[in-house]
Amino acid sequence: MQEKSTQDLERLRDQIDDVDQSLISLLRRRMDLVAQVGAVKHKAGVPIYAPQREASMLAKRRNEAQEVGISPQLVEDILRRLMRESYLNEKDVGFKQIKTDLRPIVIVGGHGQLGGLFHQMLTLSGYEVRILDKHDWDQAEAICDNASMVIVSVPISVTESVISRLPTLADDCILADLTSVKSKPVAAMLAAHKGPVVGLHPMFGPDVGSLAKQLVVVCHGRDSDAYQWLLEQIKIWGARLAEADAHQHDEAMQLVQAMRHFSSFVYGYNLYKENADLDVLLQFSSPIYRLELAMVGRLFAQDAELYTDIIFAQEHSHDAIADYLKRYQEALKILQAGDRDQFIATFNEVGKWFGDFAGQFQRESRNMLKSANDSRQI
Amino acid sequence: MQEKSTQDLERLRDQIDDVDQSLISLLRRRMDLVAQVGAVKHKAGVPIYAPQREASMLAKRRNEAQEVGISPQLVEDILRRLMRESYLNEKDVGFKQIKTDLRPIVIVGGHGQLGGLFHQMLTLSGYEVRILDKHDWDQAEAICDNASMVIVSVPISVTESVISRLPTLADDCILADLTSVKSKPVAAMLAAHKGPVVGLHPMFGPDVGSLAKQLVVVCHGRDSDAYQWLLEQIKIWGARLAEADAHQHDEAMQLVQAMRHFSSFVYGYNLYKENADLDVLLQFSSPIYRLELAMVGRLFAQDAELYTDIIFAQEHSHDAIADYLKRYQEALKILQAGDRDQFIATFNEVGKWFGDFAGQFQRESRNMLKSANDSRQI
Repeated sequence: MQEKSTQDLERLRDQIDDVDQSLISLLRRRMDLVAQVGAVKHKAGVPIYAPQREASMLAKRRNEAQEVGISPQLVEDILRRLMRESYLNEKDVGFKQIKTDLRPIVIVGGHGQLGGLFHQMLTLSGYEVRILDKHDWDQAEAICDNASMVIVSVPISVTESVISRLPTLADDCILADLTSVKSKPVAAMLAAHKGPVVGLHPMFGPDVGSLAKQLVVVCHGRDSDAYQWLLEQIKIWGARLAEADAHQHDEAMQLVQAMRHFSSFVYGYNLYKENADLDVLLQFSSPIYRLELAMVGRLFAQDAELYTDIIFAQEHSHDAIADYLKRYQEALKILQAGDRDQFIATFNEVGKWFGDFAGQFQRESRNMLKSANDSRQI
Repeated sequence: MQEKSTQDLERLRDQIDDVDQSLISLLRRRMDLVAQVGAVKHKAGVPIYAPQREASMLAKRRNEAQEVGISPQLVEDILRRLMRESYLNEKDVGFKQIKTDLRPIVIVGGHGQLGGLFHQMLTLSGYEVRILDKHDWDQAEAICDNASMVIVSVPISVTESVISRLPTLADDCILADLTSVKSKPVAAMLAAHKGPVVGLHPMFGPDVGSLAKQLVVVCHGRDSDAYQWLLEQIKIWGARLAEADAHQHDEAMQLVQAMRHFSSFVYGYNLYKENADLDVLLQFSSPIYRLELAMVGRLFAQDAELYTDIIFAQEHSHDAIADYLKRYQEALKILQAGDRDQFIATFNEVGKWFGDFAGQFQRESRNMLKSANDSRQI
């Protein structure tokens, strides 16, 4: 490069440095202001996540971006990233306590990851939380004595037996669980306890950082008025609730969880059996394949027992998993017969069935893939 | 909410509005400066993507963020998003032309999506580009006459026959292709033409917007000195190059492309056959499942012929696809036998094989999932 160009670049880069300094200060200032909003909301007991307010704020900013000639999507992406950070920082302030006159809450399995997260959120909201761990069963009576709520958060495979082993709870005590299947645990809770019962399924991993925008499925058991405050409390944490019939929930989970985890498992198992060279695969990976590989690989960084339990939990999901095998065999037959036309026809048939969702998914994933590519390092 | 709180919120939101105004101006200013950097680089013929400079700049900003007490990852994510925007804007400036004394370039299939992207990039770099489309074969001689380079960008299933139909090219003309398999097209080009030959596989879709950080695989054919300028030109566009033996490339593609697309296809086909309710599935979707569903659904928004061709292109990949079926059957047998211990043991075996990659993939995908959740709308 010529000296002139080098000097020009130096000068411009100094200016960019200055802009970035201002940018960082501005981010700091924005986060301080948002923290103050959080504190006001906290005092007033308003949920930290306000979808409408967020949507109208983003719409305004998109317009302003357009007016000065920068991409509305750029501004929206940056603001969304900032909001995530702010939600995360909410934890420092704590959360509004919805029900103040409560006796202690017991979390059975409170040292586990998900139990631990609920322990943290409840404590941050001012509740007194006790833990009943697997080594504490000799003191179960004492720990559960006078509890206002007992939350069961143990592996799926032992959920029902743990529920049946619980000491007799006060009639007004709420019995809840956090298991990722719902029919059997809710039935077990209804059988074990006479008071209020509710089944919850937090649809996220314990590493989310913040519950903002996360989903919690609610399966009503008995006497929902008594645990309404708990649902309000979860909303204060930023999560959204979806009510569902336990059976309907479990059916959807066959595809959403069991099937998905099983096929990721087979994908990883196959790579292992083929003894694929992951380094080479990554070297040749387009963003979409790298993302998929990451989704498979992340499974194996996690707890084998947890995922095995999810896959084994529902017998019906074995049928769904076997059905998938049939489809695979059908498609493979078309491939092996070299019947290109039949394959294209089937492809288009499925595409028609996806309808508008296909285009929507393409737009969604396009942004995702671009964002994946942003952090690519050579 | 009490009046006091409402007023406090109003006041704070006004201040946030002000900060956001300044933020938008600052973004505008930063992008202008980066555009000027681009113009200087353009004149000097320096690639737009400078990995080292980028890494050191990000490291500096992370430190600065830490000093004022905001998350380094937040600042890095925002800057990466800004860089993507700047790469995109490079197109407005055009690109340095590496070889100035060139006769016309012909793109066979230049009206297709990928051919069109290369047409655009070459034109933005000052080259004269002609298109030979499927309806133009009666004028093929005239269009290819005196060409300095012919790039074949047609469906895989016709690549070899199109290459063999090309008119005789000048001895110094470069013959290149953009097909996603390489062995057969490169062999076909070597047979059809005596001059320089190179096989390229751009590992990205035509909707990327910018080539910055994207990967192009290069399979050398003949006389690589003659097309060195083309490789330099692709680097100027911001892409990175990976040299590969055509056979090795094709083998990796069996897993990276054929296998992947086939299993996405089966996944979608299965949802269709089960007549799954996509609305319900989405309602119950955790971020990771929504992402996976989007990856499957996006396939069906795209061209059935293109994907069928990729899946059908290599006979060896049929073996890989059949192998996967065997693994699936093995795993299903363990599940149907209810052999939890065996499943856990296999899971851990695969996890061990993934080794450090599993943790790396978990970290990568965690950030990805957080980013997916950012744009979640209720």
